[in-house]
Amino acid sequence: MRVVQKFGGTSVGNVDRIRKTADIVEASWKDGVQTAVVVSAMSGETNRLLGMANELSNRPQPRELDVLVSTGEQVSAALLSIELQNRDIPAYSYTGMQAGFRTDSQHSRARIRNVEAGKLLAHVEQGEVPILTGFQGVDEHGNITTLGRGGSDTSAVAIAIALKADGCDIYTDVDGVYSTDPRIAPSACKIDRISYEEMLEFASLGAKVLQSRSVELAMRYKMPIHLRSSFENIPGTIVTEEDETMERAEITGVAYNRDEAKITIRGIPDHPGIAARVFGPVAEAGINVDVIVQNISEEGHSDITFTVPRQDFQSALDIVRKSCEEMGGRKVSGDDTVAKVSIIGVGMRSHSGVAQKMFDTLAKEKINIEMITTSEIKITVVIDENQVDLAVRALHTAFDLDA
Amino acid sequence: MRVVQKFGGTSVGNVDRIRKTADIVEASWKDGVQTAVVVSAMSGETNRLLGMANELSNRPQPRELDVLVSTGEQVSAALLSIELQNRDIPAYSYTGMQAGFRTDSQHSRARIRNVEAGKLLAHVEQGEVPILTGFQGVDEHGNITTLGRGGSDTSAVAIAIALKADGCDIYTDVDGVYSTDPRIAPSACKIDRISYEEMLEFASLGAKVLQSRSVELAMRYKMPIHLRSSFENIPGTIVTEEDETMERAEITGVAYNRDEAKITIRGIPDHPGIAARVFGPVAEAGINVDVIVQNISEEGHSDITFTVPRQDFQSALDIVRKSCEEMGGRKVSGDDTVAKVSIIGVGMRSHSGVAQKMFDTLAKEKINIEMITTSEIKITVVIDENQVDLAVRALHTAFDLDA
Repeated sequence: MRVVQKFGGTSVGNVDRIRKTADIVEASWKDGVQTAVVVSAMSGETNRLLGMANELSNRPQPRELDVLVSTGEQVSAALLSIELQNRDIPAYSYTGMQAGFRTDSQHSRARIRNVEAGKLLAHVEQGEVPILTGFQGVDEHGNITTLGRGGSDTSAVAIAIALKADGCDIYTDVDGVYSTDPRIAPSACKIDRISYEEMLEFASLGAKVLQSRSVELAMRYKMPIHLRSSFENIPGTIVTEEDETMERAEITGVAYNRDEAKITIRGIPDHPGIAARVFGPVAEAGINVDVIVQNISEEGHSDITFTVPRQDFQSALDIVRKSCEEMGGRKVSGDDTVAKVSIIGVGMRSHSGVAQKMFDTLAKEKINIEMITTSEIKITVVIDENQVDLAVRALHTAFDLDA
Repeated sequence: MRVVQKFGGTSVGNVDRIRKTADIVEASWKDGVQTAVVVSAMSGETNRLLGMANELSNRPQPRELDVLVSTGEQVSAALLSIELQNRDIPAYSYTGMQAGFRTDSQHSRARIRNVEAGKLLAHVEQGEVPILTGFQGVDEHGNITTLGRGGSDTSAVAIAIALKADGCDIYTDVDGVYSTDPRIAPSACKIDRISYEEMLEFASLGAKVLQSRSVELAMRYKMPIHLRSSFENIPGTIVTEEDETMERAEITGVAYNRDEAKITIRGIPDHPGIAARVFGPVAEAGINVDVIVQNISEEGHSDITFTVPRQDFQSALDIVRKSCEEMGGRKVSGDDTVAKVSIIGVGMRSHSGVAQKMFDTLAKEKINIEMITTSEIKITVVIDENQVDLAVRALHTAFDLDA
């Protein structure tokens, strides 16, 4: 049995938490499990470091930011190693560079190319416990790189794959994935098992429990992830391949995201290439377009509506107004008080009428649907942000998710 | 013209100080000087990190301590690079590993074996400003090592040598080496030029301005060191080869150290090997013996007196009592209220009567000399610690050092 355990910032946030984290690692190691550990920076540390950089410069260079913030995980890894060695466990820290995390050169959002884990594997097989810094690697020129916020999850999955581990346990301050946000629907219940695809949908909707890239990577290599609490020793949520037990329910959960704004362009002369013409400049500005709906309106004209993160609303609007004028479109309008609500579940593949049931439920609550998009395992509606709580609760109940 | 500039912890202690340090680097670079920089950790940072380690363990392993504390310089190097880049200066940080500081594997007190500076040299020649982390390196197995407290001075001299620089400027919170401690003798004056040998004597006497190893290294490769203030743009002290200007004065300065204790063994049967027999066990306990005086007393018996750092007094005394008993010695006594006062100067080689003048001066002040040792450029006496101030002032005046 071989596992990779990943601990987030709160799990190494101070000396007491480091001791509790060491308890978890020690228990695994004493059970004879070959254990490797990935740690994040102590909570607050990355922001402390970035704060100093931002005091010095309003455009600090990404290469130096990576050198700066990568120290955070190095401190955590050393401290956890010290605590474990104090318990006579052969634990040794490794930086991203030392652990062989090779990445591309995109500072602050690098992608892992490969993990040269040969030496680490030998150490693990001998019963040693490597304590690796998450979130970071080294490019082909020897520069320190980081994977972007939340990248430690991806580091953990990548090293689990490289070490051919049986699983990757991600310890965090929540005890699993819930059928919806318990702050909105107190009847929300923990999901025992969830498929990679569903988890990806949850992650992309802002359920901040796992970085999407880590789930994609796990899915590609079929690496099971156990998302669990570092505070309580109880089972969490296992993210794995779709299996029979998942297919019983129509849907697995209800997700939402309030960080949305909607932009509509009306009356664009309809000919090939208009979508590219509209979205090209938006993408160039680094703005992430999410839901897109296009319809033919009257006599050879199109309407396009799409959503962007709320912080990008004004700049997207400016860009689109300019494009609209150039294309001879009729009008651009926008609304930054919208939100997204989604139902997610592999079960909807085998259950008919799921969409209809969603729309009926919202209609009964007098919630107006402004946009609809569907994927194989997700249906998303865009609604007024003031109706999000109502929609989430109604859907949670309608689909029998209440505990 | 090519220089290495080294900045200590107070020079990078906060965002404001980093800006002032950047002013110094910028001025050098704009003058067309090829400039490389070595930085220490922000003042207080190393202790903050060690504090956490010591909370976790009373015997933290040196390998992990090195991983931990080496982050301190990495943070400084990144922040200074960010500030310089903000001024459009092509400055890039390098960790000890990236800069090619190869060391042995003695964690927390590693010695530099060589510096692979080929790439760095190319960068410097192209006008780039590498910002290097002092104090650290990497061993042959890829482990992070540190050089011990104050090791950044040694890093700076080593990289200056590797880059064939014209000099190594060490910026610190004092503006140079003084003829004695100005807190004791307000008439103390700054020394413009001092030889490596004299500087070594000052350093070994606890003048904490430069690490001894950095001076030894500079001496071996004839690398001039300019010790100067990072707060004021005034000339400091140049440490260099002995030259004519240095020979005029009888002595260069008066140094002292209160951190001393004295142990005497009387009546040891005098035969070959007794010194080894006495000092072997003391060295094995890791205690640094300093001044040693041995005399034949009556009929084939020896007396040995030596000094140790005051914190080691009790354990040294215990060890020596045991040895004395085994060797059939007569008596062990000790005194931990002594201090060392030294006069230092290459000038004493060519001036006769320097020792006599020292003893006369102390006699006139009724200061009792308990031990005397001499080297080619230093005379040290051990006296009662309560008479240190008096002795330092009297010697400073007698040798015409008063400003």
